[in-house]
Amino acid sequence: MSIITLMTDFGNGSPYAAAMKGVILSINPEVTIVDLTHNVPAQDVRGGALILDDTAERFPDETIHVGVVDPGVGTKRAILYAHIGGHHYIAPDNGLLSRLASRSAPSRLIRLENAEHWLPEVSATFHGRDIMAPVAARLSLGLDPDELGPRILALAELDWPGVRHAANRIDGMVLEIDSFGNLITNITGEMIGNRPTDNRVCIVCSIFETWGIYHTYGQHLAGTLVAVIGSNDRLELAVVGESAASILGVQVGAPVTVSWE
Amino acid sequence: MSIITLMTDFGNGSPYAAAMKGVILSINPEVTIVDLTHNVPAQDVRGGALILDDTAERFPDETIHVGVVDPGVGTKRAILYAHIGGHHYIAPDNGLLSRLASRSAPSRLIRLENAEHWLPEVSATFHGRDIMAPVAARLSLGLDPDELGPRILALAELDWPGVRHAANRIDGMVLEIDSFGNLITNITGEMIGNRPTDNRVCIVCSIFETWGIYHTYGQHLAGTLVAVIGSNDRLELAVVGESAASILGVQVGAPVTVSWE
Amino acid sequence: MSIITLMTDFGNGSPYAAAMKGVILSINPEVTIVDLTHNVPAQDVRGGALILDDTAERFPDETIHVGVVDPGVGTKRAILYAHIGGHHYIAPDNGLLSRLASRSAPSRLIRLENAEHWLPEVSATFHGRDIMAPVAARLSLGLDPDELGPRILALAELDWPGVRHAANRIDGMVLEIDSFGNLITNITGEMIGNRPTDNRVCIVCSIFETWGIYHTYGQHLAGTLVAVIGSNDRLELAVVGESAASILGVQVGAPVTVSWE
Repeated sequence: MSIITLMTDFGNGSPYAAAMKGVILSINPEVTIVDLTHNVPAQDVRGGALILDDTAERFPDETIHVGVVDPGVGTKRAILYAHIGGHHYIAPDNGLLSRLASRSAPSRLIRLENAEHWLPEVSATFHGRDIMAPVAARLSLGLDPDELGPRILALAELDWPGVRHAANRIDGMVLEIDSFGNLITNITGEMIGNRPTDNRVCIVCSIFETWGIYHTYGQHLAGTLVAVIGSNDRLELAVVGESAASILGVQVGAPVTVSWE
Repeated sequence: MSIITLMTDFGNGSPYAAAMKGVILSINPEVTIVDLTHNVPAQDVRGGALILDDTAERFPDETIHVGVVDPGVGTKRAILYAHIGGHHYIAPDNGLLSRLASRSAPSRLIRLENAEHWLPEVSATFHGRDIMAPVAARLSLGLDPDELGPRILALAELDWPGVRHAANRIDGMVLEIDSFGNLITNITGEMIGNRPTDNRVCIVCSIFETWGIYHTYGQHLAGTLVAVIGSNDRLELAVVGESAASILGVQVGAPVTVSWE
Repeated sequence: MSIITLMTDFGNGSPYAAAMKGVILSINPEVTIVDLTHNVPAQDVRGGALILDDTAERFPDETIHVGVVDPGVGTKRAILYAHIGGHHYIAPDNGLLSRLASRSAPSRLIRLENAEHWLPEVSATFHGRDIMAPVAARLSLGLDPDELGPRILALAELDWPGVRHAANRIDGMVLEIDSFGNLITNITGEMIGNRPTDNRVCIVCSIFETWGIYHTYGQHLAGTLVAVIGSNDRLELAVVGESAASILGVQVGAPVTVSWE
């Protein structure tokens, strides 16, 4: 029994994802396939890297995660196998794995070169189906990753938007907007640490402000702007019962400041 | 072998649903997980209750259904286990199970209190992942529901929009709009009973009317407004080949009247 | 172990698809169910036929594919079982299988008539759940297809938009637009054959033109209009890093011409 997850930017309901599943099940009909999401914005490597980082390690150890956000398909960019934190990853070497790898150093990094584990005909535009899917299926049958190609030493990095720390202030930004319209920031509970979270702390996003950081928004009145530490330890701004993104009119990249008096 | 279904308001393709699946498979890698839907409108407990009522009992007996439409997450609202009609349900106690329970009395109702069956760290904003998913996974492995917490006697109810009956008339409303734009009402075939369904019956929705109740819309001309008894025994209004919701410009809550001459 | 795929026009996240899965798992709880897509545009038989043709044969031999794009539900249109290219298909006889069947003649065609393999109560509007799902589940348990009804000789055809060939010119059209906004045409790599694909070939779509046919768009500058032979051997027009459909403002049916000097 083993598990393969798929994360792509093909869009919900894309038959391209089904084609990958067909290829996988043709090689290993017993494997369990789970959709991580197919909703990564088109070619948004950064967004995909965040989702992998938040979600992949919820799965059992030794799960095989395939990430296809691949604006460079058909160019000479490599496709990687990586073993990180007890999980297996197959992804283009474009930074999609860089956020995971920054938390936990890969124990093995391999560049996929051995075409005997791929489909016999490899298209130039769909390596997810023709290379990554069959490789994942063969790993799920026990293939040694070293059969896939040569070991390499490093993977491509992405510049991550920085957070600036001062004694009384943290400056960050909105990193993503979830399906409820909550604004997820790059400021974490860990960064806030032991500083006060009661009404001595002020959170400003764009031209809006709120005081206090809470553990939940359910106890606030509808329409209230609330700052919470969310389920992935990141500071989130929510408008109770509404979409904060719509009501505040902000997008990914909007500045967020946490400051103490 | 057992089956867990997931119904949430996370939106299609949300990685939050994938995180729940990861938690479940980490506890029971052999379980079959099926998406009931992740498309319940955000925080629409009533809509979720309808979908559970229409869909859950299509699954095999002893299926475990997890419903996460949870605007009160992080407040003191309880999370329930319920055994209803031979199926198991895990859901917040906010009325999500009330429509099922009104048809078939729960044979067991338990308030989830025993944290040893939850994830070690429970966030304040994502009980679907941290409490409901692990509990469902443990039930699928055979855990006795009584281990989850104390038995209780009643669950939260929702006010359901009433239907008024008169000798020659039934007054109801549009309860939901399906993905084809068909208007699903709270009037059932059972309520109509043996009264005529030919051109002696008039159905009015908003300012539009149609005569006769049919079993199918396939035999009518494109663009015709047709009333049918749908696949869940509810009266539906459809415009053949089009979205009735768009063409009539009506929304959930629009009045629907069935009357006989 | 066997596999059932589902293709419908119910829309992503529709609980109608979940109801079909419940029916299938109630009959065969061990079967693997895969969503081919639920995103076929409503009642677009032609679009569904294309997706089946592109995707179904990626699955293992003997997979059972259920296609529910069924504008005629409730009329006298037949429901078919077909064995084509080593795979099993269940679909309404409205042309949904015609593109597959034009490539590879069906070895068995049966009209579903034997109601003992259906749900006990068959609604007039949801044969996917009440007829096709239980039949697929029973096939997955080994039921002989001849038990389903009488053999027939032919299935319904669809008119497919033709391609006109001349010595120096191929005239076709945009057949579908994928989730990236790429324009997929009815002109294939096979039709182009050995003719030049360098800058002696000109591809015109609507009022736009590009020279040369490439194997990938990853090597071109963002914003460039590029013609490629895509992963299903069809000529595609893409704008690198953008949606060609939006930028060119074209829709399905737009003329596409390939010509050589």
